[in-house]
Amino acid sequence: MGSFKGHALPGSFFLVAGIWWTGKYSLWHATRRNKSIGSTRLAGRSLQRRLEIIENSVVLFFSLVGMLAEQFLADGPKLQLYNFAEKHWEDLMNWQHATMYLFFGLAATVSLVLHSTEAAPLALDRLMLAVAFFNEGFLFLYHLHGRSMLDVHVHQLLLYAVFGQAIAAFLEVFHRGNIILELLRCTLTILQGSWFWEIGFVLYPPSGPEWDLTDHSNMMFVTMCYSWHLAFAMLVVGVLYCTVSCVVRSRLKRTPPMEMGLLKTTERDAESEDDVL
Amino acid sequence: MGSFKGHALPGSFFLVAGIWWTGKYSLWHATRRNKSIGSTRLAGRSLQRRLEIIENSVVLFFSLVGMLAEQFLADGPKLQLYNFAEKHWEDLMNWQHATMYLFFGLAATVSLVLHSTEAAPLALDRLMLAVAFFNEGFLFLYHLHGRSMLDVHVHQLLLYAVFGQAIAAFLEVFHRGNIILELLRCTLTILQGSWFWEIGFVLYPPSGPEWDLTDHSNMMFVTMCYSWHLAFAMLVVGVLYCTVSCVVRSRLKRTPPMEMGLLKTTERDAESEDDVL
Amino acid sequence: MGSFKGHALPGSFFLVAGIWWTGKYSLWHATRRNKSIGSTRLAGRSLQRRLEIIENSVVLFFSLVGMLAEQFLADGPKLQLYNFAEKHWEDLMNWQHATMYLFFGLAATVSLVLHSTEAAPLALDRLMLAVAFFNEGFLFLYHLHGRSMLDVHVHQLLLYAVFGQAIAAFLEVFHRGNIILELLRCTLTILQGSWFWEIGFVLYPPSGPEWDLTDHSNMMFVTMCYSWHLAFAMLVVGVLYCTVSCVVRSRLKRTPPMEMGLLKTTERDAESEDDVL
Amino acid sequence: MGSFKGHALPGSFFLVAGIWWTGKYSLWHATRRNKSIGSTRLAGRSLQRRLEIIENSVVLFFSLVGMLAEQFLADGPKLQLYNFAEKHWEDLMNWQHATMYLFFGLAATVSLVLHSTEAAPLALDRLMLAVAFFNEGFLFLYHLHGRSMLDVHVHQLLLYAVFGQAIAAFLEVFHRGNIILELLRCTLTILQGSWFWEIGFVLYPPSGPEWDLTDHSNMMFVTMCYSWHLAFAMLVVGVLYCTVSCVVRSRLKRTPPMEMGLLKTTERDAESEDDVL
Repeated sequence: MGSFKGHALPGSFFLVAGIWWTGKYSLWHATRRNKSIGSTRLAGRSLQRRLEIIENSVVLFFSLVGMLAEQFLADGPKLQLYNFAEKHWEDLMNWQHATMYLFFGLAATVSLVLHSTEAAPLALDRLMLAVAFFNEGFLFLYHLHGRSMLDVHVHQLLLYAVFGQAIAAFLEVFHRGNIILELLRCTLTILQGSWFWEIGFVLYPPSGPEWDLTDHSNMMFVTMCYSWHLAFAMLVVGVLYCTVSCVVRSRLKRTPPMEMGLLKTTERDAESEDDVL
Repeated sequence: MGSFKGHALPGSFFLVAGIWWTGKYSLWHATRRNKSIGSTRLAGRSLQRRLEIIENSVVLFFSLVGMLAEQFLADGPKLQLYNFAEKHWEDLMNWQHATMYLFFGLAATVSLVLHSTEAAPLALDRLMLAVAFFNEGFLFLYHLHGRSMLDVHVHQLLLYAVFGQAIAAFLEVFHRGNIILELLRCTLTILQGSWFWEIGFVLYPPSGPEWDLTDHSNMMFVTMCYSWHLAFAMLVVGVLYCTVSCVVRSRLKRTPPMEMGLLKTTERDAESEDDVL
Repeated sequence: MGSFKGHALPGSFFLVAGIWWTGKYSLWHATRRNKSIGSTRLAGRSLQRRLEIIENSVVLFFSLVGMLAEQFLADGPKLQLYNFAEKHWEDLMNWQHATMYLFFGLAATVSLVLHSTEAAPLALDRLMLAVAFFNEGFLFLYHLHGRSMLDVHVHQLLLYAVFGQAIAAFLEVFHRGNIILELLRCTLTILQGSWFWEIGFVLYPPSGPEWDLTDHSNMMFVTMCYSWHLAFAMLVVGVLYCTVSCVVRSRLKRTPPMEMGLLKTTERDAESEDDVL
Repeated sequence: MGSFKGHALPGSFFLVAGIWWTGKYSLWHATRRNKSIGSTRLAGRSLQRRLEIIENSVVLFFSLVGMLAEQFLADGPKLQLYNFAEKHWEDLMNWQHATMYLFFGLAATVSLVLHSTEAAPLALDRLMLAVAFFNEGFLFLYHLHGRSMLDVHVHQLLLYAVFGQAIAAFLEVFHRGNIILELLRCTLTILQGSWFWEIGFVLYPPSGPEWDLTDHSNMMFVTMCYSWHLAFAMLVVGVLYCTVSCVVRSRLKRTPPMEMGLLKTTERDAESEDDVL
């Protein structure tokens, strides 16, 4: 995966995931806040559940594709773990990336089961997400032996976002539906996504001169750059949140309250899934 | 204890403990969820208490056996701490292992007292468990001086599980009966157990060639292997939890509701021990 | 910013901020405690909101001034990031300081929006503050490469206060209006302010001999000195809190209860902003 | 303070404090549990308050004595901080110890004010205690430069107890009156006390041969020894707690319930101080 594409691809996934989650949680939150004026029509419990099932199916699908791609594309190990002829491990990098995808796949599977059968408390999906992010960070942590200074540094900075996501998701086990924690996790997901792109540009510049990977002033610039990515991620989440809030409010104003009264009776006890915890 | 057996033995204990706990907590949780249809018949408070007493007696028994075995078996120090003739400490490893068993024995003793006399709040048993795991990790942490790289690494990975268990048990002091935390602790216990087996296979391979303890690619493989053990432990806990849930539900359906009504009056206020906290 | 003034200036800002916050939170707390005897007249909800808006406008103004000053004063980079002629980064220090100001500016902006529009939960302002402090500490952490021992040490000590503020502000997301946490944060802010002055005196003594930056006994003295600054900050906060409490109580005694009864009806449901969370 | 006495003295203080706190919290807890059968007679609110005032006066007195002793005894700096003639800091060790006492004195002062005037929330006394322990650990942390291996190690082990106390006291800010946390803090206080004695015996053996401070097996023994001290501290706290519980229960049985009924009315709303938070 030591290539520009190899970093841009997961980066794009995390960017999309972060933006999607921001939209989703903003919508749920706006819905809950305006419940009194009948907004549950926009996002009732059955819609919420359907969305969760679609989201997790997509994640599961891409995890499987990712695992297969790591194994069977050009330089993959093709499920062979140890090369007995030459006595060395076969493509450990690819195996590690496949393991990361495996945990996101597991989290999506558990989430699918939870939202379609009620077999266990909903909070389990956040624990699985926390474990998946923790596992990603754990593998990255022991991934960096013997690389050059700047290479190690940009990957270490990534760990702030990854372990931050793990902690935020773990806290959500106890504070489910807390919009502050949800937006924090969205921000860190977008940060992780945009930082993957940055790593690609720094280590494998698609055009222009190579970076000096041992220069200390480059390291200082990269550190500051990480702050800018964080500010950018906060900006994106902020703009999205405000847009969704405004749209929900304006759509509620346009529909006459009469119709709402009729709807309300049928949907009264089928509102937000998180309320029934 | 530097042998294959010396790692397989505690590994087996932790595996059994993890599986037993998963079954127990799954049963309590299924019972509490289906309370309305009279499931307390399956696991009333007196049964729960009896189970806790049996469990802790078994743990206490094995702790005592473990301490005696460490002291008096073939190469044990036979309660002699300092060899004044040759001026060195006698078998510090055995003493350290005996100390670990001592803390698990203490935790079991306190738990026995709590569940049979109500002398103190129940949450104390989780604190004692947290202390026992913390003490195990603490001793392992200062256990590794001067060993080869891979040896140190596999034991450090073990510490993730051990300190993870300590933290989960400590959180249970404040969130007792939270099934998410309980399952997390079970998963980490099974992880610890299966990792002890892995350590045995890596450091003292019973068959086949020895591992190169200084090769960095071995270290990277072992790190990834730890993730697989975690995934395996999550799978075991997941399957067990679902099985227990299904069995409880199917048994409740077979028994007619009439009989339940009669039982309910006598057991109404003797249900789950955790509810009365 | 490597000068006495460059440390005294932010130090003064944090000192003022810490004292202002102590006064504000003490006033709110005294108001809430004496609510029954009509104290809301002293600090009703609309006054509270107006104060927050003024405070955040001032913070925003100084953040902007700070950013512009770092860029355009004598030795600033004048918005040029990379010197292509000489192939090096332009004044990274100034850029880093401007980044720190940027985050405090963002926190103030979000706070302004929250207190004037109710677009999102109020707790978000504490999260933004926590992020701003975390970002400050994060940039300082990677700021210290290749400096002399004492220089590194005094900046590391600063990090205790900075990360302490970040943690306290993050805890306030979940325990908003907890006066203990608020006073803790005020204490750490004053500590940070006075420590910036101390750093100025140690590294750039305006008069007298220079300090030996490699002497270990200097380092030990500086460590102890940090404790004294903490004690001093606690003293300042304690005295301010008691003064405000006494003034509120004495002013309430002087005004007759009659008048209060008249005011109470109009302000009954417009009291402290934090109560309505 | 580099002597046997210099470690035995603070050790004795912490041992006494730990035992005293265990007794106090056990008594409060037993009182609250048996409230229904009129036990508040044994420990009503006014008694509780009087005890707190006495306790904190004693702590304040010994803090002052400690500070004066460090300054004016034989080898003290006599309030002189810098020796301008020989250009070095005067007895930094004594100054550091005096600083530690200062923070315990501050905590006691604040606690005195809180329990006699109700000026601020009671939880503040736990925060001050947490700060005092944190400060102690903070100063010890930077206290160890250039000492021999075993000397550093025994002091580092001490930090587990000290920072553990700080964390337990900080958690009590949010979970006041939680007997589990209180007993944990008592255990760690006794551990700290007995470990100070151990440090004295290891570094300055009053009789017998000196320890080899660079031998690694000594270090391993000392680590294990720390676990034994912890087990011993848990035993002491356990025995004390059970004794107090039994005594309270037996005294309540001997007094006839009649008399209790008469007392109850006058003390109904003056029971445990912690209940009114």
